[in-house]
Amino acid sequence: MKVQLVGFGNIGQGFAQVLLKKTRSLRERYGIDLQVVSISDISGTAIDEKGLNLQKALATMEKTGKIIDYPGAKKISGLEAIEEVPADVVVEATPSNIETGEPGMSHMLKAFEIGKHVVTSNKGPLALSFKKLKEAASKTGVEFKYEATAGGAMPIINLARECLSGDDIIAIEGILNGTTNYILTGMHRKESPFDIVLRESQELGIAEADPSYDIDGIDTASKLVILANALMGMDVSYKDVRVKGIRRVTLEAVKLAKEEGYVIKLIGEVRNSRLEVSPRLVPVNHPLNVDGALNVAMFETDIAGEITIVGKGAGAIETNSALLSDIISIWRKRS
Amino acid sequence: MKVQLVGFGNIGQGFAQVLLKKTRSLRERYGIDLQVVSISDISGTAIDEKGLNLQKALATMEKTGKIIDYPGAKKISGLEAIEEVPADVVVEATPSNIETGEPGMSHMLKAFEIGKHVVTSNKGPLALSFKKLKEAASKTGVEFKYEATAGGAMPIINLARECLSGDDIIAIEGILNGTTNYILTGMHRKESPFDIVLRESQELGIAEADPSYDIDGIDTASKLVILANALMGMDVSYKDVRVKGIRRVTLEAVKLAKEEGYVIKLIGEVRNSRLEVSPRLVPVNHPLNVDGALNVAMFETDIAGEITIVGKGAGAIETNSALLSDIISIWRKRS
Repeated sequence: MKVQLVGFGNIGQGFAQVLLKKTRSLRERYGIDLQVVSISDISGTAIDEKGLNLQKALATMEKTGKIIDYPGAKKISGLEAIEEVPADVVVEATPSNIETGEPGMSHMLKAFEIGKHVVTSNKGPLALSFKKLKEAASKTGVEFKYEATAGGAMPIINLARECLSGDDIIAIEGILNGTTNYILTGMHRKESPFDIVLRESQELGIAEADPSYDIDGIDTASKLVILANALMGMDVSYKDVRVKGIRRVTLEAVKLAKEEGYVIKLIGEVRNSRLEVSPRLVPVNHPLNVDGALNVAMFETDIAGEITIVGKGAGAIETNSALLSDIISIWRKRS
Repeated sequence: MKVQLVGFGNIGQGFAQVLLKKTRSLRERYGIDLQVVSISDISGTAIDEKGLNLQKALATMEKTGKIIDYPGAKKISGLEAIEEVPADVVVEATPSNIETGEPGMSHMLKAFEIGKHVVTSNKGPLALSFKKLKEAASKTGVEFKYEATAGGAMPIINLARECLSGDDIIAIEGILNGTTNYILTGMHRKESPFDIVLRESQELGIAEADPSYDIDGIDTASKLVILANALMGMDVSYKDVRVKGIRRVTLEAVKLAKEEGYVIKLIGEVRNSRLEVSPRLVPVNHPLNVDGALNVAMFETDIAGEITIVGKGAGAIETNSALLSDIISIWRKRS
């Protein structure tokens, strides 16, 4: 199966690292032979229709930070690579943009148009125009898989679709952003104020220099939109979510909660067609109380009752667990 | 799709109840039309090749407790029904027997022999002879699905197979028995001794009159064997598990643990080819610390890291979430 990788940052490079380790075991377990025939970043595209040398691609990034320095790489964009290089699956791993959805949106639409499956970790396009993307995929009968967009390594979309297929999902509640969870856990544990824990998180590389995307709840809201559309048959976008972030969570509130046996967590919830992201009190012994940078999602269903899943919501390697299981599921359907 | 139900106790009757509610939504979502063409219990078999009236079957049980009292029912056994009544799938839901595996073992082998798929909640046969059953199924190319055997409503086998398909499972740890968890949670919360909490659980119908199957760790060990064989490529049976139950967990130990920020839980673990069931100390804020009668399983994998799932490990209705998702997965493969 020929794979095109578009976007070669953390997750894209993690994809290459994981494939290097797992190519053999994937062949043995599933009979699947994955070849990465192109890798694109903003500088250009490395192409080899017989399969690129992933070790060399990673070494190139290590050295110069640009894929154009891979031997024989061409100055064509990801979009052009999708159009020109023959392949079965496009792995879209460019950075998420919640305002325009670009460049991921154009990449995905182009792939669907010319009959390529898409596996993605890029939530921007899905949070903006899920329905449009889904319709484009079904028009040419290709697969559109996006487990990595909603919970990183934590399976949530496939969990509902494959493991709870007989259940109706009544509601989903969860912590869908690791950075805010790390900050709130720190405030609770160390009894330090928001600003100080935020700064520590930034120094550790957990929070970004501009942390607003995480701490204002935008990331959580985007994921909630994807879950509502994908699992509950809704047709909503980012603007339909009531969002309140964690900037105004005071140390006093955290301490008071702690005294009463609660923690404050940034919870995303979809229920009765309403989507909301806000800091909430969670009892200490509740399944939604998970520590550090972990993510958690709780499904309320009609048969199984409550099902909770916990895992790492991010990580260059971890997120590739989701990309890989999506690729394998496409392979299984084909064969 | 024609279904035969063998075993009409709690779970079998729950199956009928769930189907009554969900027949229409299953048809709409998946195009699947489920007809229960026979129901067997120890008294006999109700048969209708066009589909039994499930309402009537449940009413019969309510009235006399025997399916032989369903209009036109025949005095043939579940095994004979599997042989004689044309159907696609056998739902094997007879009681689990960890010594002989019967009657489930014979039911499943017969179904495989004549080319019927099997979906089951009966862990006895799997804990005793997993390999034999798997080989029998693959001989005639039919599906063998058993999500309900390991975690009740908590998806665990399909979670690993479908959602973590690119990962290697390095270890599994979990609370796989709700009754012992209920008792240990009670001892911790109320600071009551084992005997008293056990008696309360029996009065509430949570623990059985003879509770040894649960509290001596036999149930947990059986489930652990199924997970090791199904998900880690092992070939073990019940006798390969080192088992220690919770009879000797004293209130003093529970209190001491509590003071130090721990809870005592009956943990099943498979790691480095070793299977063990024993009471262990779990930190209060650890994902394995789940309350009441909940079950939990934690996978350690090579890519995703740790993934934890929590859900109801039992329940006449809840367990049918697993049976149903297995049936749907067979349907999807066929169509």
